[in-house]
Amino acid sequence: MSRIAYVNGHYVPHRDAAVHIEDRAYQFADGVYEVCEVRAGRLIDERRHMERLKRSLRELRIAEPMGEASLGVVLREVARRNRIRDGIVYLQVSRGVAPRNHGFPDPAVRPAVVVTARRLDIAAAERRAAKGVAVVTVPETRWARVDIKSVSLLPNVLAKQAATEAGAFEAWFVDADGLVTEGSSSNAWIVTAEDVLVTAPADLGVLRGVTRTLVVEVAARLGLAFQERRYSLKEALAAKEAFMTSATSLVTPIVKVDGQMIGDGRAGALSRALRFHSRDAAERGGELSSPRMAVLTKD
Amino acid sequence: MSRIAYVNGHYVPHRDAAVHIEDRAYQFADGVYEVCEVRAGRLIDERRHMERLKRSLRELRIAEPMGEASLGVVLREVARRNRIRDGIVYLQVSRGVAPRNHGFPDPAVRPAVVVTARRLDIAAAERRAAKGVAVVTVPETRWARVDIKSVSLLPNVLAKQAATEAGAFEAWFVDADGLVTEGSSSNAWIVTAEDVLVTAPADLGVLRGVTRTLVVEVAARLGLAFQERRYSLKEALAAKEAFMTSATSLVTPIVKVDGQMIGDGRAGALSRALRFHSRDAAERGGELSSPRMAVLTKD
Repeated sequence: MSRIAYVNGHYVPHRDAAVHIEDRAYQFADGVYEVCEVRAGRLIDERRHMERLKRSLRELRIAEPMGEASLGVVLREVARRNRIRDGIVYLQVSRGVAPRNHGFPDPAVRPAVVVTARRLDIAAAERRAAKGVAVVTVPETRWARVDIKSVSLLPNVLAKQAATEAGAFEAWFVDADGLVTEGSSSNAWIVTAEDVLVTAPADLGVLRGVTRTLVVEVAARLGLAFQERRYSLKEALAAKEAFMTSATSLVTPIVKVDGQMIGDGRAGALSRALRFHSRDAAERGGELSSPRMAVLTKD
Repeated sequence: MSRIAYVNGHYVPHRDAAVHIEDRAYQFADGVYEVCEVRAGRLIDERRHMERLKRSLRELRIAEPMGEASLGVVLREVARRNRIRDGIVYLQVSRGVAPRNHGFPDPAVRPAVVVTARRLDIAAAERRAAKGVAVVTVPETRWARVDIKSVSLLPNVLAKQAATEAGAFEAWFVDADGLVTEGSSSNAWIVTAEDVLVTAPADLGVLRGVTRTLVVEVAARLGLAFQERRYSLKEALAAKEAFMTSATSLVTPIVKVDGQMIGDGRAGALSRALRFHSRDAAERGGELSSPRMAVLTKD
């Protein structure tokens, strides 16, 4: 739990951290966010998170609340004040506070900025990754612009809750054509029988995950085959492996979808190797310590 | 502007009215709302707003924050403290405050309640209705459950902003089949050449507006023909009249869609009569003072 939060220019005790009731994120979901991994006290992939944040703001025509360097200072300061060694920093920017009207405030108001941080239980995450997780599927019900990382997350909330109630860790959205788009808070991947990595294109229906991009690069450096294309739930159920990517889960193998075993029902070898190398690359600012793929023994 | 707001059990000065940064409406759009008209100091259609609120909460499995009678007391008290004679009361209920995780907090937390009120410029609204307003159309991009009155309103914000920038008052969502669903904060209606009132069915893609329901009843009492069916933008452009309904606009004639004149480009006779009788019925708790349709002269 975050003990100190940054709210609109001030570092405040978490329990007192408040925003005005007419902050537009509260009344209209008119805001964007980023979740950035902290590892050994360092922000992972900060540059890509900042780039994506700027794109989200630009798409919604919300002004940048401060320069990128200043924002980086705030993120690191919140991590430091909360003594986060391994965890996440959460950043939210809304269009600001204004009397409730759907259209943008005119004249524009100052964007609101909130930053929190919390520790992650790395050992639990490792155990989860070693064992692999279950996912369930839910109908794709989200709005058309999920490429923007907005706080308009109600369908994601309902999807994650459906997963939890089914004893699963994540929910995959499946569209009307039976195609998997992405998870409620992760990108969705499969590995074909021919060891080809497949994930849906990051277009309007899929968020360009920072970890997704990292894994694409890592796969290329390891010489793995990769296809960016849509795939059906049917293809996923018949896949050799499946996994999810996100800042908080990194690469986490999926062993069950809608109660059906994927592959042999154990965390896949390629998925586990990608987790290993992605961690390595994240810690080295994108570089691999070795371009040779690790061969990991199954637990 | 609201001077006094109700926030989680307290009446506070509006400028100090704040919610915690981890209120789920702020981070996940995990909340619902109602906007209730106040006329001559009385809440209009309170019962229907309460019923719809309870349905929204039920659909999202958010607990009712207090009994209906107590909530009514709060709404009236906020109106009274802000000395609202003609205006609106805004009520928002979120799932509550909890450390950020997509799934529902477990154990559940107490829902958060915010109520504000503000005056409306009735004279300006009457002038607008007499003249009629322009609308523009935007692609339907919203999530599948807009029948729930949630604060997941980002597409509505963008639509209203598009209208404002085009010099229009409202935006209509038009789906991939070319069918009009509803406005960004109103239901959309047309009147056919045969004087039939038409609005889209209030199913998963259209909110069951309280004023929409009132107008359906008023039309029935006046013996007007009414069809609840989908209609295309093409049909709307060729319609004899068009109008919008909402708690804040009541019945407001539409005279232009995407720059094209509707009918003779003036506020339609049926639309204006419906505004007159709907106001009358709203003030009389649903009853009409006379079942004879008013014949209103054009300005």
